[in-house]
Amino acid sequence: MTTALSAPAALRARAARLDADDPMAPLRARFLLPPDVVHLDGNSLGPLPAAVPAALDDVVRRQWGTGLIGSWNANGWWEAPLRVGDAIGTLIGAAPGQTVAGDSTSVQLFTALDAAAALRPDRPLLVTDPGHFPTDRYLADAVARRRDLEVRRVEPADLPRFLAAEGHRVAVVSYSPVDFRTGELYDMRALTGAAHDAGALALWDLCHAAGALPLDVDAIGVDLAVGCGYKFLSGGPGAPAFLYVARCHHAVLETPLPGWTGHADPFGLAQEYTPAPGIARARIGTPPVLSLLALEAALTAFDGVDLADVRAKSLSLTGFLLDCADALLTPLGFTSVTPADPARRGSQVTLRHPHARGLVVALAERGVIADMRAPDLLRFGVNALFTTHRDLLTAALRLRDLTRDAAYDPAPPAAGPVT
Amino acid sequence: MTTALSAPAALRARAARLDADDPMAPLRARFLLPPDVVHLDGNSLGPLPAAVPAALDDVVRRQWGTGLIGSWNANGWWEAPLRVGDAIGTLIGAAPGQTVAGDSTSVQLFTALDAAAALRPDRPLLVTDPGHFPTDRYLADAVARRRDLEVRRVEPADLPRFLAAEGHRVAVVSYSPVDFRTGELYDMRALTGAAHDAGALALWDLCHAAGALPLDVDAIGVDLAVGCGYKFLSGGPGAPAFLYVARCHHAVLETPLPGWTGHADPFGLAQEYTPAPGIARARIGTPPVLSLLALEAALTAFDGVDLADVRAKSLSLTGFLLDCADALLTPLGFTSVTPADPARRGSQVTLRHPHARGLVVALAERGVIADMRAPDLLRFGVNALFTTHRDLLTAALRLRDLTRDAAYDPAPPAAGPVT
Repeated sequence: MTTALSAPAALRARAARLDADDPMAPLRARFLLPPDVVHLDGNSLGPLPAAVPAALDDVVRRQWGTGLIGSWNANGWWEAPLRVGDAIGTLIGAAPGQTVAGDSTSVQLFTALDAAAALRPDRPLLVTDPGHFPTDRYLADAVARRRDLEVRRVEPADLPRFLAAEGHRVAVVSYSPVDFRTGELYDMRALTGAAHDAGALALWDLCHAAGALPLDVDAIGVDLAVGCGYKFLSGGPGAPAFLYVARCHHAVLETPLPGWTGHADPFGLAQEYTPAPGIARARIGTPPVLSLLALEAALTAFDGVDLADVRAKSLSLTGFLLDCADALLTPLGFTSVTPADPARRGSQVTLRHPHARGLVVALAERGVIADMRAPDLLRFGVNALFTTHRDLLTAALRLRDLTRDAAYDPAPPAAGPVT
Repeated sequence: MTTALSAPAALRARAARLDADDPMAPLRARFLLPPDVVHLDGNSLGPLPAAVPAALDDVVRRQWGTGLIGSWNANGWWEAPLRVGDAIGTLIGAAPGQTVAGDSTSVQLFTALDAAAALRPDRPLLVTDPGHFPTDRYLADAVARRRDLEVRRVEPADLPRFLAAEGHRVAVVSYSPVDFRTGELYDMRALTGAAHDAGALALWDLCHAAGALPLDVDAIGVDLAVGCGYKFLSGGPGAPAFLYVARCHHAVLETPLPGWTGHADPFGLAQEYTPAPGIARARIGTPPVLSLLALEAALTAFDGVDLADVRAKSLSLTGFLLDCADALLTPLGFTSVTPADPARRGSQVTLRHPHARGLVVALAERGVIADMRAPDLLRFGVNALFTTHRDLLTAALRLRDLTRDAAYDPAPPAAGPVT
C-alpha cells in the first residue's frame, strides 16, 4: 500500500533517509555551528572549525607570548607558508613543494598572472572569462596594461574555438572551474588541454573549487593556480590564499613581488635578489602568522576525508536542493540558473528572483544564511563536510513560506558594505 | 660622604632610581611578558599585549563562530583596514583617512613605490639607501625594472648633495628614518624637504620607527609611508603592515594592485575597475581579519600614551645601555655602532663583536632575548612601554659574564632559518 505524500512530506522523508545513510555525517562535529542556524554560505565564509580556537590560543599564548621571536624556528612559523601550502596541495592534487600560502587571493593572482605572462613573453593576448570574479578581471587588466598585453574576454564555452583560431597569440588563459554566480562547473581538463595545444599556459582560480570537489592540478597539467582559504577550506575571515606553480616552471619563475622571504638567503642581507629554489621563491613578505596558523588548524577538518566522497555527497545535496526548488519554489517565480546536469554543477545552487536581496535578508532573520549577488541571484552553497539534506529542505521551506506570505522587504536598506 | 661604588653597583643604583622615577612604569602591565625573560627584541617581534588573547577569542568564537558572514557588517570587519589604519595614523602623525592596513610590508612597499613612480612619470631615477632593509631594495629594483627607471643607491648623509645635483631627474626617494642595523636616526624632515625642493616625492619605511618615537608625517609633508605591525606596535607575528598616502595624492593615486576591495562599488561586480575615493583605493584583496583584529587590540597598549614620553624614556634607556656597554663591554672587545648623540639615535643599541651569533644564542639561553645581523652585530631593541633600565643592566651583565667566561659557542649551529 502506498500513501500519497504531500511534496514537503515526501521531501522530508527523502532527506531523513539520505541523512541517515550519510557516511560523512560524523564530520559535522568538526565544526562549531551555531544552534538553530542553517549555514548555506560556506562558499563565501566557512564556519568555525572546532580545531581552531584551541590551536589559535596556543599560537597566541604559548608560541607568541612565551616563545617570542624564537617561535619562528621552534614552532615552525618560518616554514608555515610552505607547510600550509602543501596541506592545501593535498586537496587540489598537487605534490608537495609546489604550493605556498600567505597573501590574499588578489596578491597571489597578480603574482600568478604576471609570472605566467613572463613565461610567454612573445605572445600578446591574456584571455579571461567576462564573467570572472571582479578581482580576477581587474588584475588581468592591470597586468595587461603593465606588460602591454591585450585582454580578450571569452566565455568558457567559446574558449576551445577561440584557442583553435587565435591560440598561437595567447600567453595565458585565466579561468575559474566554477562560476561564482551560477555554480556552473567547467571542464578544467579539457580547457587546460586546449590551452596547452595552443602553446599557452593555463591559470586557474580555485576559490570556489578547492575543498569542494576533487581537483587534480598535477595530473591535468595546470600551470598555475590560486585560491582562497576562507570558503570551502573554512580557514576564517580573510584567511590567506594559496598559489600553486607547477614544478616545471620553478627554475625560470620570476615573481613581480620579490620580497625578502623569497630570497635564497633571507638573512644574508645581500644587495641583489637571488630567488630561493622551488616554490619558496613565490614567498613575498612576512606572512600573517595568526591567520595562517588558524587556516592550518582549519584544514584538519579534512583529515581522512576523500574528496571523491565529498563530491558524491555534494551532488546529492545540490540535486536535492534543486528538487526542493522545483517542487516548492518554481511555482512562486523562482528559476534555477544552476545546471541540472551533475557533471556541470559545482557545490552551490543559485536561484533567480527579482527580490533576491530582500529574501536573503528575511531568510537570515529566520536562521538560514545564504547570500545574494546583484541584482537578482540567491546563492546557496553546500559544504558536504557539515551540510545535511534536512538543512536544504528547511531553507527551501522557509524561503517558500516567506515568499508566499510576502514576509520580506522588497527593497531592504543596505545592511552595510557586504551584501 | 660618597662611597666609591663598583661600576655594576653604580649602574644598578642608577637603574633603580630611573625605574622608580619612571611615570610609564605601569604600562608594562599591558604586556604579558614571560617571567624571568628580558625581552630586548621588540624591534623585531613585540611581545604579547595583554588585550590580545581575549579580543582574538571574541573574534574567533563570537564574531566568526556565531556571527558568521554577517560579521563583515555587524562586527565591522569590512571597515577594519581603514579603522586600524587610522589607529596607526594617530601614532605617525597622520590625520584620519590616509592610512590603510591589511597586507604585508613588502606588498605595501610595492604599492607605494609603484604608485609614487606613477606620480612622477617623466623622471627616470628612483633613489634609495644602499643599507636599506633587503625587501626595500629588492622591491625598488623590481619596480624600477618594470617602469624602466634607474635605481641610484645613495647614503642618507649624501642625499641632500645628490638631490641638489640630480634632483630634477628623481621621481622618488625611498628611505627609512632608522637604520635597522645600527639604529641610527636620520632627519626625516630635512630629507623630505630636500626631496620636495627637487620636485621629488618622499617615501618612508617606518618599520623601525612607528610606535617608537613621535612621527609627524602630515606636518613634515611625507608623500607616502609604509610600516609593519609587529615590531614596536606589537601586533603579533606577521601582523599586517600599513600604507599611508598623503591626501593630496589620493585623487590621482593609481595602485598597481587593483583588487576588488579597493573598488568604488565592491559588490557591484562592474566590468571595469573604478577606484574607491580616498585611501580606500589602496585596499587590495580580502585582508587577514584574525591577524588584523589582533593588531587592533594590540594598539590599545598605546591608549593615553604620549609618544613624546615614549621618546624621552627610550632615549634614557638607550643612553643607559650605551653607558653599561661602555663600562662593562668595551673592555671585552665590543664596540657600539649606535650614535651616542641622542638626536641621531632610534630606539635600539647595536654592538659589534666577532662572535655576535654565538653570544646572542648564549644570551637567549640565559633569558635575554636580543638578535643579531650578519656578520657581527648584536641588536638590542628597547620598547619604552615595557623595558626597564634594570632589564638593560641585566642584559649587559649577562653579556659581560658569558664573554669573560667564554661561555658561548663561537660557531653555533644554525637554529633554523631565522637568526
